[in-house]
Amino acid sequence: MIGPEIDRLIRMLAKLPGLGPRSARRAALHLLKRREALLEPLATALADAAKHVRACSRCGNIDTTDPCTICADARRDSSVLCVVEEVADLWALERAGLFKGRYHVLGGTLSALDGVGPDQLSIPRLVQRVREERVSEVILATNATVDGQTTAHYIADRLASLNITVTRLAHGVPLGGELDYLDDGTLAAALKARRPA
Amino acid sequence: MIGPEIDRLIRMLAKLPGLGPRSARRAALHLLKRREALLEPLATALADAAKHVRACSRCGNIDTTDPCTICADARRDSSVLCVVEEVADLWALERAGLFKGRYHVLGGTLSALDGVGPDQLSIPRLVQRVREERVSEVILATNATVDGQTTAHYIADRLASLNITVTRLAHGVPLGGELDYLDDGTLAAALKARRPA
Repeated sequence: MIGPEIDRLIRMLAKLPGLGPRSARRAALHLLKRREALLEPLATALADAAKHVRACSRCGNIDTTDPCTICADARRDSSVLCVVEEVADLWALERAGLFKGRYHVLGGTLSALDGVGPDQLSIPRLVQRVREERVSEVILATNATVDGQTTAHYIADRLASLNITVTRLAHGVPLGGELDYLDDGTLAAALKARRPA
Repeated sequence: MIGPEIDRLIRMLAKLPGLGPRSARRAALHLLKRREALLEPLATALADAAKHVRACSRCGNIDTTDPCTICADARRDSSVLCVVEEVADLWALERAGLFKGRYHVLGGTLSALDGVGPDQLSIPRLVQRVREERVSEVILATNATVDGQTTAHYIADRLASLNITVTRLAHGVPLGGELDYLDDGTLAAALKARRPA
């Protein structure tokens, strides 16, 4: 006996990652009880985002301008390009706040199983950018998964003839990580890449 | 380096119960990547809800009509009134699908600590409804917490002089519940309320 508008709201909220049917109901009630403080501002924020957000035609980032804020920022070093799988990875690196170059979002990884080849990702565009934007270093920051590493290998091969530096993120023990809880692969990688103390 | 519209969207999503900053970012990206399938419909659903949703002036339920669908439904038994703390409790009872009477939403519980007295809840309105709507039974379905039970006691006292039946939800072992995992209070209640097999 819930009205159709509320029912639709709950079903839409339940499609968000991290919200199941029960938490979607809780979220809906939370919003409905705080119409002015939450419900209306969230509706406006979503409508604004739907109206203005677009993919950056240069790097694949999601932003309200094209080229995106990062590509348009003249203070960023355009000679270093960091290649990531998804926009979420770009955001994660931005939060870390260290990298001051530009990005290239692949839109996924190569996957023979899912039929994802280089042309389904923005790999041809990456090669084109490296050529056109006087890039001197490409950092491969794909995930440390099988697909991510395969994709990084493939890209390194494609870029081999272009006379630029191609690097990868270091593997090792994460900060705060306890050896006892780490998988063998990470431990082996950290040992192999050991450095003078 | 996230645009202000996206940043605002993430901050609004993070205010939903069950979503922290990290899952709000994930939810925002999920929405932004599915503009037509998710982002726009959710924005519309929220805007519609904000426009149409109101509290039922009779029972306190949240709906798009006033009186709400339940109060307006002539097939429901108006002689039985089920008193709940919050709209979420009403929804839970509706999902159970057994109760065919009407509801009264208190809007919380009595709490000396938080300065919530009978007049901050809709208790005077409840007494008025019992008088005016020829109610023959009031079911007290407040939560089985200290505040919920105190509130139920208080309401039972207030209704004592009105010559109606006042009942409460049964306490006991929940369906599928394992005795070993139940608290002592529930077990004691279930034992005291035991019935012939």
